[in-house]
Amino acid sequence: MSIEFSQQKLPVAVVLCRPEISRNIGAVCRSMANNNCSDLRIVGNKSDYDEEEVLRLAIHAGTIWQNARFFEPSVAGLTASIADCCIVAGTTRRVGEKRKSWGMTPEAFASFSLNNAAGLTGIVFGNERTGLTDEELNVCSVAVNIPSAPDFPSLNLSHAVQVVCYTLFRAYSPRKYGYERIPYTRVTSAAEHINSCLCKMGLFKHAGKEDNIRFFQEIIARAALSAREARYLEELFQKLCYVKCQNAAEKEPGMTLQQIQPVPNN
Amino acid sequence: MSIEFSQQKLPVAVVLCRPEISRNIGAVCRSMANNNCSDLRIVGNKSDYDEEEVLRLAIHAGTIWQNARFFEPSVAGLTASIADCCIVAGTTRRVGEKRKSWGMTPEAFASFSLNNAAGLTGIVFGNERTGLTDEELNVCSVAVNIPSAPDFPSLNLSHAVQVVCYTLFRAYSPRKYGYERIPYTRVTSAAEHINSCLCKMGLFKHAGKEDNIRFFQEIIARAALSAREARYLEELFQKLCYVKCQNAAEKEPGMTLQQIQPVPNN
Repeated sequence: MSIEFSQQKLPVAVVLCRPEISRNIGAVCRSMANNNCSDLRIVGNKSDYDEEEVLRLAIHAGTIWQNARFFEPSVAGLTASIADCCIVAGTTRRVGEKRKSWGMTPEAFASFSLNNAAGLTGIVFGNERTGLTDEELNVCSVAVNIPSAPDFPSLNLSHAVQVVCYTLFRAYSPRKYGYERIPYTRVTSAAEHINSCLCKMGLFKHAGKEDNIRFFQEIIARAALSAREARYLEELFQKLCYVKCQNAAEKEPGMTLQQIQPVPNN
Repeated sequence: MSIEFSQQKLPVAVVLCRPEISRNIGAVCRSMANNNCSDLRIVGNKSDYDEEEVLRLAIHAGTIWQNARFFEPSVAGLTASIADCCIVAGTTRRVGEKRKSWGMTPEAFASFSLNNAAGLTGIVFGNERTGLTDEELNVCSVAVNIPSAPDFPSLNLSHAVQVVCYTLFRAYSPRKYGYERIPYTRVTSAAEHINSCLCKMGLFKHAGKEDNIRFFQEIIARAALSAREARYLEELFQKLCYVKCQNAAEKEPGMTLQQIQPVPNN
């Protein structure tokens, strides 16, 4: 995934339906900015909100509030707010008898939204206290339920937005931090190197070499070492061996002390 | 996944390292409760926080705060706070040169944490402004980075806790809402039923039947209909056919009107 793509805005509109608490709207702006979403629509009157409170919680995402579009606080307003979306999910924590075929997980919806035809995806979040009404939910094409603890299912509004936007962001912008772990041949050579050092130090004179190599092979593979970590481990044993041999006045002529670079963070 | 299992507490301890804002601690309690986490540890002095503010944001998750354990606000305190954890992730948004081999995604860490040996998993979150220091991060076994927009990477503390706890909850409590879509034979029979109704109504007298069946097969499969929706669609065409035939005084003796049950939410 190129940086260019990951910096593109997600083709996602976030619709807040009759939100009550200005601070929540600010926190929603910040969640959206965290996940490359910038298209905010509010089914409500702008004058009903305290802009200062919104901006205080939005941190540096205030432009999302400033560019937000407002719609009449009614079902007609909600319908107008999503007119340009190709598919619209209403978020709800109710999963009743009649809603069985609804209720995709955020991950399933994100995957659907990503893998099907292009076009704008809408996500509608209801009022903090009441959620979406049946009528509002019926305007949406599908429902999304955020899985949560059965005895504590109600998420804060901005947290719900964070989870759904994060899930969409992850689907649209696959990103992998981390490192490449060493391949099997390198795992084996590291184990053999360690074993050879241990042998030089006098261990495994008669038996146990094979078991020892296998032991190190297994833990090195399971710990999924990076190339740098493997080198560090090898050098550590090499140094141990050098010190031991030097102490025993059995210094080998060809052997040089390799400086071990510490890898505290790698 | 049985309800019994999904209601078990996750084997996860959330550690807040030097949090500053009492309100954030309350919001963290709520996020934890949403995700079946209840083990909160705070590296900080209890007396430094405003309990009323904490409880106001925790909503009904105040017991998490009340049962929280406190540790001296120092690296030694952090170390003590995670003494019983088998693996500890420090969350950080810095992914520097030296941290390359760190930085698992929340999903990768959750999967690791679930799929490896049992034992308590710790997640450490840093101070709101400064995050975890290098020294604090070094106490942890791995780092976790929450993927976010490159130009807006900083998440609110409770949002970060929500994302990581949600991801762990999802890994430990796989849950699928939704419905079973109809199998291919049912897709085909529905398409054939619709076609047969259309034929009775006078369409496709000479040609086009095969194309029409294929058309309905394709859209029914792509829409992933539930059994109830397939029945509704069939009955709709059957009713159309009945009405048409009745109007034309061509009523067939064996045909009865089936009442269509509306499926607004299914």
